[in-house]
Amino acid sequence: MTPRPSVEPVGLDEVGRFDHECGVLIVGYGCAGAAAAYEAARAGADVLVLERASGPGGSSAQSGGELYLGGGTEVQKACGFDDDPDNMYAYLEAALGPNADTEKLRLYCDESVEHFEWFRSCGVQFNHSLYENPTWMPFTEDGLMWLGENAWPYNTVARPVPRGHRPAARGFGGAVLMERLSSAAGAATHPDTQATNLVLDGDGRVAGLVARRYGERVTYRARQAVVITTGGFVDNEEMLAHHAPVLLGHGKVSDGLDDGSGIRMATAAGAATRRMSVVEIALTALPALACRGMLVDGLGRRFINEDVYPGHYSVHAVRHQPGPYWTIVDEEAYESVPEADRWGVLPKHVTETLAELEEALGMPAGALENTVEVYNRHAEKGEDPYFHKDPKWLRPLRSPFAAIDPADGFFGGADRGTGTGARGFTLGGLHTTVDGAVLNTSGEPVPGLYAAGRAASGMHGEGYVSGTSLGDGTFFGRRAGRAAAAE
Amino acid sequence: MTPRPSVEPVGLDEVGRFDHECGVLIVGYGCAGAAAAYEAARAGADVLVLERASGPGGSSAQSGGELYLGGGTEVQKACGFDDDPDNMYAYLEAALGPNADTEKLRLYCDESVEHFEWFRSCGVQFNHSLYENPTWMPFTEDGLMWLGENAWPYNTVARPVPRGHRPAARGFGGAVLMERLSSAAGAATHPDTQATNLVLDGDGRVAGLVARRYGERVTYRARQAVVITTGGFVDNEEMLAHHAPVLLGHGKVSDGLDDGSGIRMATAAGAATRRMSVVEIALTALPALACRGMLVDGLGRRFINEDVYPGHYSVHAVRHQPGPYWTIVDEEAYESVPEADRWGVLPKHVTETLAELEEALGMPAGALENTVEVYNRHAEKGEDPYFHKDPKWLRPLRSPFAAIDPADGFFGGADRGTGTGARGFTLGGLHTTVDGAVLNTSGEPVPGLYAAGRAASGMHGEGYVSGTSLGDGTFFGRRAGRAAAAE
Repeated sequence: MTPRPSVEPVGLDEVGRFDHECGVLIVGYGCAGAAAAYEAARAGADVLVLERASGPGGSSAQSGGELYLGGGTEVQKACGFDDDPDNMYAYLEAALGPNADTEKLRLYCDESVEHFEWFRSCGVQFNHSLYENPTWMPFTEDGLMWLGENAWPYNTVARPVPRGHRPAARGFGGAVLMERLSSAAGAATHPDTQATNLVLDGDGRVAGLVARRYGERVTYRARQAVVITTGGFVDNEEMLAHHAPVLLGHGKVSDGLDDGSGIRMATAAGAATRRMSVVEIALTALPALACRGMLVDGLGRRFINEDVYPGHYSVHAVRHQPGPYWTIVDEEAYESVPEADRWGVLPKHVTETLAELEEALGMPAGALENTVEVYNRHAEKGEDPYFHKDPKWLRPLRSPFAAIDPADGFFGGADRGTGTGARGFTLGGLHTTVDGAVLNTSGEPVPGLYAAGRAASGMHGEGYVSGTSLGDGTFFGRRAGRAAAAE
Repeated sequence: MTPRPSVEPVGLDEVGRFDHECGVLIVGYGCAGAAAAYEAARAGADVLVLERASGPGGSSAQSGGELYLGGGTEVQKACGFDDDPDNMYAYLEAALGPNADTEKLRLYCDESVEHFEWFRSCGVQFNHSLYENPTWMPFTEDGLMWLGENAWPYNTVARPVPRGHRPAARGFGGAVLMERLSSAAGAATHPDTQATNLVLDGDGRVAGLVARRYGERVTYRARQAVVITTGGFVDNEEMLAHHAPVLLGHGKVSDGLDDGSGIRMATAAGAATRRMSVVEIALTALPALACRGMLVDGLGRRFINEDVYPGHYSVHAVRHQPGPYWTIVDEEAYESVPEADRWGVLPKHVTETLAELEEALGMPAGALENTVEVYNRHAEKGEDPYFHKDPKWLRPLRSPFAAIDPADGFFGGADRGTGTGARGFTLGGLHTTVDGAVLNTSGEPVPGLYAAGRAASGMHGEGYVSGTSLGDGTFFGRRAGRAAAAE
């Protein structure tokens, strides 16, 4: 094994004269970096952003671009929905839980309308129309979508209101979003520059950093603060093995550069981490098909109401059920999904009987027969006493039956490599205050160091909903930028 | 919130003259501390052990005292079992996995017979007799017990051989074990002394530590090394919330002092951690009853073969299934457990029909009826196609039925407070080499710092078996002691 390059901090006296100098130095130009740069510059700081890639974007630009916003935004109102911060908080505390960060979450919900307006001021457009159906991401330009708010048990803890805000774009909106945010931030940027070590002064204060550009060492002095917005660590197999092994072997949701470099650089300088094992996992299973039939595990057991936010059934499956996972539908369910919403997914197995299907899938004899018998018996009465799926999706399944391969669907192409049909990213990271100050093991700030986005542990507990990573990254990125500029 | 005392390291120049000095300074006198002290002294070092409590013991002394040993020990041979290190490794890699530390595990298995002999040389006695039945801990003086080796799927990856070695004691053997180990180590000890901060010299080398005794500050110089054997962090609610929230609200397996102080002191000095979210959980459900009936979750679903090591069904339940958990038996199953093995547990509900029972337990109508129907249909044929319980435990369950409360049983009394029937401890900790050297974020040793026991991440992946924590703590404690003495 070749030794990894050291990420240990460098003393100010070892650096001598710095190659570059600025007020607030931001490391990583994804959504959190853009938000921090925007606010730091607006507060009058001399801002410089370092980015490993050749320009802004990061994993944010490869995402769907959904933003989890609410509390009564213009889009919600225009679509006829009445929301408020407490209602939003009640949903997110449950959906991002258990053990969501209540302090961060409270702020996020209380100021969500303002945050929505900030996106608009940056030039992000949201159409005033709702996409009604369960999906990972609609290929329409609708500005609003449901993200599990109307599914049990969440519909029992908060008034169901959709909060998935979508930048006007067909399909993936992350690129448009990042184009707008980086334009609005307008920060001076050093691309192709990889930060490697923090520089500490004699009092342990972060004074800048050492980077590499085209193999050359470059040094940066930050007079006010360094803000780490480098993303998570799903691309670092060793860190996954140490902290989040559940993702080993699955696909990755990233731009390929989420290698935890910022987290490592900061922990080497004394920063504490939090919730390093928490991850988001997305199973390719198509929500439109799943909610009309059932999701089962490798033993043919149903395990969740299929109309939840698809990230919830994905995490539940991969974390808690033995694989492989299958969507079981009948002909009527399959045919009732508009062809455009099937994304080219075809059944892997079609059989007349469940006995044939369970045999084809390698399940215990009688497993699917039993699961479907129980499901049908209750569905006849419009009930789902185990998981409480919305009655509108409940209907007895009748022969012929089909099994949909979980490796087909939303991430189909990219996932054939791993074959698991699942992709994920990490949610744990540096321990920060609501203003992005990075804390050490004793709970004291590491002077001069801030972080936001997936390099930090944000408002998430053990759950996740689309739009809360871009949402949390930008919201707390903005706060970190303001606090850094005030140093 | 009152600010916590700082655990940040102190500079050598801030200390001035040390109150005490030694060669190898060991922090914490549980099993890992005793093992480290033994070997360091044997290698000629001037050893001193600090202990917060009034004497040696720690959580080790409160444990059952089981030691997971094998590969062909004298006890195994005397009981007629043929084992070898590869066979032991195959079982543990599966049972402590997924993602066990293969390097540590390989050494542990290869040298297990030697480690067994070391215990004997310390005066620990093991009787040459086997306790046959599934249990958390037999109240006999048998020297050997099964720890899941004969249960599916483990019996398919390794030849089933029992490896639970028990010091001769009725019931809990931890106190006897620690009495022997601390006597054998014979180390000079400063009791009632709580280490608070490491002392670093100008090169970042650990040179000693600062402690508190009866409210006074005391300083210790360690000429060779400091070895941290302070235990895990189950008693630190804030650390649990940050790293292992699954244990919040459950009972604790500890002496009440496992507050992560050593882990925090070391991370503040640059140490990296590993697998901080991994825990062991013990559900009180009695194995003797569970394997004769079935374990079900809050929805009345069976989820595992009940003849696995009880820690496996406990972790599976608490991590993966909705509670509350119940043991369902019929009259014949209950009566067939010898009264001495029932530990006073009485059924909470007894009913003629499963419909009455599922109603009493608040389960969906038909849930238990369905589960028992499926179980019975296969049990008639001596089969368990879902979970492969040993046919010797398979028998259709017949009216009358009973539900056993999971809060009754092994940990009954202690757990009534939490009401969850589950107790646990943490398995994550400092990142160490096989010789106990503590590594920093860059993967380089923190000079002069060693760790073992539950303050370190040992050979465990995400699984656990009784005796592997005392086993790993002593085995790698010995290696850490030797390496520290060689500094």
